[in-house]
Amino acid sequence: MTQQPVRLTAKGRATRRRIVEGAAAEIRERGAVATTLDDVCRVTATSKSQLFHYFPGGREQLMYAVAEYEADRVLLDQEPYLSDLTSWAAWDAWRDAVLARYRQQGMTCPLGVLMTQLTRTTPASREVTARLLQQWQRMITDGVRAMRDQGATAPGVDPDRAAAALLAGIQGGVSILLQTGRLTHLEAALDVGISGLRPPC
Amino acid sequence: MTQQPVRLTAKGRATRRRIVEGAAAEIRERGAVATTLDDVCRVTATSKSQLFHYFPGGREQLMYAVAEYEADRVLLDQEPYLSDLTSWAAWDAWRDAVLARYRQQGMTCPLGVLMTQLTRTTPASREVTARLLQQWQRMITDGVRAMRDQGATAPGVDPDRAAAALLAGIQGGVSILLQTGRLTHLEAALDVGISGLRPPC
Repeated sequence: MTQQPVRLTAKGRATRRRIVEGAAAEIRERGAVATTLDDVCRVTATSKSQLFHYFPGGREQLMYAVAEYEADRVLLDQEPYLSDLTSWAAWDAWRDAVLARYRQQGMTCPLGVLMTQLTRTTPASREVTARLLQQWQRMITDGVRAMRDQGATAPGVDPDRAAAALLAGIQGGVSILLQTGRLTHLEAALDVGISGLRPPC
Repeated sequence: MTQQPVRLTAKGRATRRRIVEGAAAEIRERGAVATTLDDVCRVTATSKSQLFHYFPGGREQLMYAVAEYEADRVLLDQEPYLSDLTSWAAWDAWRDAVLARYRQQGMTCPLGVLMTQLTRTTPASREVTARLLQQWQRMITDGVRAMRDQGATAPGVDPDRAAAALLAGIQGGVSILLQTGRLTHLEAALDVGISGLRPPC
């Protein structure tokens, strides 16, 4: 599922991005079901024909683009720490950033909401989450490997397995937050997961 | 939300259970949306008036009862290990049972499917999952505490926090399995989580 017209000028890319950002904000505010293309045109000061120029596939294609944008935000909200997990101080700051992000987001999940809108193209919505999980895990793995290469980890830490376990803990912590409104599990998963990487005192 | 008529005879309880089990099997086979009350009557050899005797609230109440039944199954499928995590052998056997359960279940989630059917009573569906998570976590906590009381855990293991982290890892592992069809994360969460409880070799 390729979304974009083959070539967009810099101005075209900026307009497309403005539409996606406006649609994302509107969907976060009002929900995906309630947000119409007319709403998106209104909040982004775009004509319908302009919208269809950038999203010839209409609503479905726009929703997909917004899902990609929200997936990118999940990772961007963890920066500058996630891509530079090269000291325990960075790990602690990352932990705080993840908790702060989900504390703020609370019991809503913008990406999850969008996924329910991509029903006609389930493979496409799976693709967005699969790619997000892959990138996220790779960045955590890089961090574990960096610490191991400094000789700073507990003996026997396997970066791939440790990162998979930590990502699972984060996903589960977020899922329990969405169900219960409590951050306890996300916090425990991060704290226990990160402390397991460090050598015993 | 209490579902049952105040007093059921032993025979009444057996009939009610037969209806719930039949409905659960039908829903696992055909999906919740496609399963009608007529289908449930047919597969359980029950009349419509009998069905409404046990479930005066109709479809919604039956779906709730099936959700409770599926939630119970989640825990029962982890027995006899989950309620007796008092040796590392039991922990390993539990890990294998959890993996086997979810390997068999694959990319479908009977409980999740039912949750989408309980839309009119979101608090009720939240209640089922919240209770499941609480029971599950309490049983893991009891296991960690049992090992700690034997002096068998790593120094500094906090049973509540360790159990919360492990449950988050399992939830996340299952959620990634549902999205990707891969067991890797669930396996990593269990292995890393359990090995983190043990003292370093």
